[in-house]
Amino acid sequence: MVVLLKQNPDREQVESLISWLQDKNLQVHRSEGASRQILGIVGDSSRLDIDLIAALDIVEDVKRVQEPYKSANRKFHPEDTVIKVRDTQIGGGTLTMMAGPCSVETEDQIIGVAKAVKASGATVLRGGAFKPRTSPYSFQGLGAEGIELLKLARKETGLPIVTEIMDASQLPLFDDIDIIQVGARNMQNFNLLKILGAQDKPVMIKRGMSSTYEEWLMSAEYVMANGNQNVILCERGIRTFETYTRNTLDLAAIPVLKSLTHLPIIIDPSHATGKSSLVAPLAMGAVATGADGLIIEVHNDPAHAWCDGPQSLKPEAFDALAKKLIALHGFMKTEEAAS
Amino acid sequence: MVVLLKQNPDREQVESLISWLQDKNLQVHRSEGASRQILGIVGDSSRLDIDLIAALDIVEDVKRVQEPYKSANRKFHPEDTVIKVRDTQIGGGTLTMMAGPCSVETEDQIIGVAKAVKASGATVLRGGAFKPRTSPYSFQGLGAEGIELLKLARKETGLPIVTEIMDASQLPLFDDIDIIQVGARNMQNFNLLKILGAQDKPVMIKRGMSSTYEEWLMSAEYVMANGNQNVILCERGIRTFETYTRNTLDLAAIPVLKSLTHLPIIIDPSHATGKSSLVAPLAMGAVATGADGLIIEVHNDPAHAWCDGPQSLKPEAFDALAKKLIALHGFMKTEEAAS
Amino acid sequence: MVVLLKQNPDREQVESLISWLQDKNLQVHRSEGASRQILGIVGDSSRLDIDLIAALDIVEDVKRVQEPYKSANRKFHPEDTVIKVRDTQIGGGTLTMMAGPCSVETEDQIIGVAKAVKASGATVLRGGAFKPRTSPYSFQGLGAEGIELLKLARKETGLPIVTEIMDASQLPLFDDIDIIQVGARNMQNFNLLKILGAQDKPVMIKRGMSSTYEEWLMSAEYVMANGNQNVILCERGIRTFETYTRNTLDLAAIPVLKSLTHLPIIIDPSHATGKSSLVAPLAMGAVATGADGLIIEVHNDPAHAWCDGPQSLKPEAFDALAKKLIALHGFMKTEEAAS
Amino acid sequence: MVVLLKQNPDREQVESLISWLQDKNLQVHRSEGASRQILGIVGDSSRLDIDLIAALDIVEDVKRVQEPYKSANRKFHPEDTVIKVRDTQIGGGTLTMMAGPCSVETEDQIIGVAKAVKASGATVLRGGAFKPRTSPYSFQGLGAEGIELLKLARKETGLPIVTEIMDASQLPLFDDIDIIQVGARNMQNFNLLKILGAQDKPVMIKRGMSSTYEEWLMSAEYVMANGNQNVILCERGIRTFETYTRNTLDLAAIPVLKSLTHLPIIIDPSHATGKSSLVAPLAMGAVATGADGLIIEVHNDPAHAWCDGPQSLKPEAFDALAKKLIALHGFMKTEEAAS
Repeated sequence: MVVLLKQNPDREQVESLISWLQDKNLQVHRSEGASRQILGIVGDSSRLDIDLIAALDIVEDVKRVQEPYKSANRKFHPEDTVIKVRDTQIGGGTLTMMAGPCSVETEDQIIGVAKAVKASGATVLRGGAFKPRTSPYSFQGLGAEGIELLKLARKETGLPIVTEIMDASQLPLFDDIDIIQVGARNMQNFNLLKILGAQDKPVMIKRGMSSTYEEWLMSAEYVMANGNQNVILCERGIRTFETYTRNTLDLAAIPVLKSLTHLPIIIDPSHATGKSSLVAPLAMGAVATGADGLIIEVHNDPAHAWCDGPQSLKPEAFDALAKKLIALHGFMKTEEAAS
Repeated sequence: MVVLLKQNPDREQVESLISWLQDKNLQVHRSEGASRQILGIVGDSSRLDIDLIAALDIVEDVKRVQEPYKSANRKFHPEDTVIKVRDTQIGGGTLTMMAGPCSVETEDQIIGVAKAVKASGATVLRGGAFKPRTSPYSFQGLGAEGIELLKLARKETGLPIVTEIMDASQLPLFDDIDIIQVGARNMQNFNLLKILGAQDKPVMIKRGMSSTYEEWLMSAEYVMANGNQNVILCERGIRTFETYTRNTLDLAAIPVLKSLTHLPIIIDPSHATGKSSLVAPLAMGAVATGADGLIIEVHNDPAHAWCDGPQSLKPEAFDALAKKLIALHGFMKTEEAAS
Repeated sequence: MVVLLKQNPDREQVESLISWLQDKNLQVHRSEGASRQILGIVGDSSRLDIDLIAALDIVEDVKRVQEPYKSANRKFHPEDTVIKVRDTQIGGGTLTMMAGPCSVETEDQIIGVAKAVKASGATVLRGGAFKPRTSPYSFQGLGAEGIELLKLARKETGLPIVTEIMDASQLPLFDDIDIIQVGARNMQNFNLLKILGAQDKPVMIKRGMSSTYEEWLMSAEYVMANGNQNVILCERGIRTFETYTRNTLDLAAIPVLKSLTHLPIIIDPSHATGKSSLVAPLAMGAVATGADGLIIEVHNDPAHAWCDGPQSLKPEAFDALAKKLIALHGFMKTEEAAS
Repeated sequence: MVVLLKQNPDREQVESLISWLQDKNLQVHRSEGASRQILGIVGDSSRLDIDLIAALDIVEDVKRVQEPYKSANRKFHPEDTVIKVRDTQIGGGTLTMMAGPCSVETEDQIIGVAKAVKASGATVLRGGAFKPRTSPYSFQGLGAEGIELLKLARKETGLPIVTEIMDASQLPLFDDIDIIQVGARNMQNFNLLKILGAQDKPVMIKRGMSSTYEEWLMSAEYVMANGNQNVILCERGIRTFETYTRNTLDLAAIPVLKSLTHLPIIIDPSHATGKSSLVAPLAMGAVATGADGLIIEVHNDPAHAWCDGPQSLKPEAFDALAKKLIALHGFMKTEEAAS
């Protein structure tokens, strides 16, 4: 951390700041120029409240040199996190394929889709029971009933399930869910993150619509600082000025996060683009860029889906895509081994 | 609503869509061109799920002509909403001045600030008990204790209090609070909005950091559709590429919302800019643009505030500003009466 | 400037960097921590190429402490720049009102509007001769003929004229223009800026649609570094996710720029919002926030304007607004004198 | 195009609008509802000035159904454009690899890099002679001398050259250049686009930093409407809130543009990310997503590059990447043939 002091700061306050920092086991290096002083602070400052320092009368600016996250930081945990869920694992060189409908609608629908995507190679079943909708007049999901239908589909296929929680009060319903998803709009619902940190099921955190990598990793840190190390990050597009696609998928997130954190990265091309015709090319792009997996919407009858039909693939289209993804993943592994 | 059909759509499906719309008491006007058909839909379509229609095989695009919000819509409620809180009111031509510290810290602090801002003309006391912080390692607020200290300050000064709720589980603690604030990060926490709609205390909804006016009004609609009509909107800056200020204050929100909705609009120049030197000019700008009021951070000792010190005014500075704001508000009323 | 070195940097390269900096009359203060070294650089680094340093093998990061602009920097020129144009001046406590149509269309139109806005108190006539249009099929302006019509209107009214240049090759046509405008899309047309810096007419630079304050000031610096100190800055809204307004007017630019630079600031509420109903409230807000002036579109027949009709005021509406702006400017001066 | 009329519009003006549209060979379909009228306009409206219609007193809103670009539109030119440059071609299933330094610096440098990238499989040599720099104090490129050095490198290697033009006045210097690049900041320098449309060398247009696909295609349309059909589009990242990378590379641009236009798409992972460690994964992602090619910065000595060193690859790293890209391109072709 680098603290730039104002011109002619009060000497006593400077000394007091330095002592305070030293009490926190930080080393302070003072660089006195003609008109300005700079304090270089060395040590683990990730748990310092930077705002407290920035607010001091004598301080002009504070710049972090070190990342403000610790548990999620690859520097302190060089090995990739691998998350085991039932018979599958996420991270560690495998290709995870989460697939299923946006919303759970009926028993036939969810079991039908689950069987189809499993046959195509999916390793996790996705499906929404609680749906965050911009309008109070839109379909809000089947709720508890949707959760039960997902469990039935799991029973039929063995696929672990991932579904979204919208509020801490719903947690008891998620007792038998395999992976709990936190949606983009809840990425900074800090109370929810704390509560998910205090239980042990894997948590998949979607990136907020206008969040930076650091804010996203800080949300992971909220879960991890409360005890739960099983966090998966899911890029689902960020808001930009482009309106042709729903959001703009940021595939640079893959290599960036691979360098900053040890957590696995899943890509969601369905929500990111909002258009089924863009799902396959971007899913291929994500695998070639190094993603740990994908989450893809599949619906047996997209034209009558209760939500987000335009971005869902039919099972046949998913099957063709899954084959190509598996082949590409194999190609990438061979290339990597050769280099 | 205008529905653009794809080229050569299935006739039967078109008829079925038209019947379905007519069943919902909507009139459908069909415009058949050489290569395209357009359906013009007339009537109250605000409660239609636009995604359901967009997802149909025969539909290329759906464009709304009507706003998707109804309770918050000025077209259906031409009169300004005026919210009465204890001895004061928000909206209806008054100038509301909410003032107080970012965080409640101690009894002395909150009572001292409350007395000072009341003397300067503030009509509502603000203060944070639960603080949404990006880092799990930052100060998270005094919580329940902070709420109690706010009540003490109210007892001393008579000022009604506004403070932020972060999670539906905290609601019992807000039983004796005058105005419940929903923070920017929770603007689309739909479960929280529903629960606040089912009680009757006024709710002040801050605009999400990258939200549009329509999304913001839809969040108000969530509260109102659940029964609570006492909603206040608070503009607190949106995220832009500018990093010199914390956010970019959007004063156009004032006249835009005045035309779209009947709800009162409060401006927060403190959080928007993050710099105390910018608070006064933008507060003046907000009043001249037609805001119903302001929410301003005031701290007796900004250099030692537990959060957001750099944006807080000292009581003396607030006093000088409040005098100017009151004078400007008077000037604007005289101008308006004259024109 | 603060240079953070990588861990265990090559000692020789560090010494060589330090010597290079000292040769440029900069003082270098070295702060050696346990794992990191920081170089604090004191002196005038505004003309250093920061990229050259950032690119060195031994450097992890470079952070500027000092602004990269010098001629435009208030620190080095504490007095406000006041620009004299014919009988009027811009800056220095006056209220500049630039008004006129988006496009010059006919002699009658431009002379009619010029007389009307002068009678209402406008001090500068605006009008587009060269129009930047997104589509090659849209009306591109009258060009040289438009310039001649503007001069006729000036002859009739005495109002100085401001009009936009789109390319350096057009400069000869601007020989007798009073203020040359650089549009938002050309804010970083560096060749154009250099050429405008090499002549002496005042240049008004509109802020780029997604530019930061610093980038904008660097564009002013391009003109000033080439010799021309007569630069005016014009805020015209930035691109955000909001689509209801054309752009989002950033009134915080006024106090921010007043602290960073000595150049005058003009606000354009017409282009920023794209809606005539929003012009008056935001123009009032701009004056209360401390703007040096406004540029407002006025058209005798907005419904038949050749471009941007929806945002133009009729002369009567401008007249009513101008009276209120002048009264508000007077009120603000009285308040300021009293405080 | 759909025109929504205001409530109770003047009948005569409506008739006059309809006649005017019919005179332009458009069919107008009128849909009269209880409270609103909608005009559905069928035919080629791409050359209509939408602003003219939106400005009419009787019109509330105009929504385009048809794209406003014609020459660039795949609907009217279903076949891919293939651009032949010396011995190579761009588009049509080939993998174009443009490589070279950000700036041309010396004869040794540019010839050395040119030979190296050719040996690795590059098909076009890139190098900057005129450099758009935010600061007037930064290195601005070698100019005309840089152009001459590029030609020498072409003579040595046979590689066609692409380099950036910044102003129409520089055109004579580009007489013997193979591909003229328009930079992101000049994407809407309409005069430059018109002049490049009036000559016949291929033009590569980089996407503006905050431009939409449609605005980008409209810039291509400016060139094409003036006669030159040889346009290449280059995605180089858009500005977002993320500051870790310089920009955010939008790979969805590839399948979106493939559907909207017949022009070839090149991806620039070097400028988009600003970090050499991110170039390889995103280049692989771009090829798997379907790009026609890449433009990659390669420098023999990135640590001493005169600009943009941190994002340049060394020739060895480019060689390794090029091999992987060629293998991946082959894999993708095999997959495509099989499906």
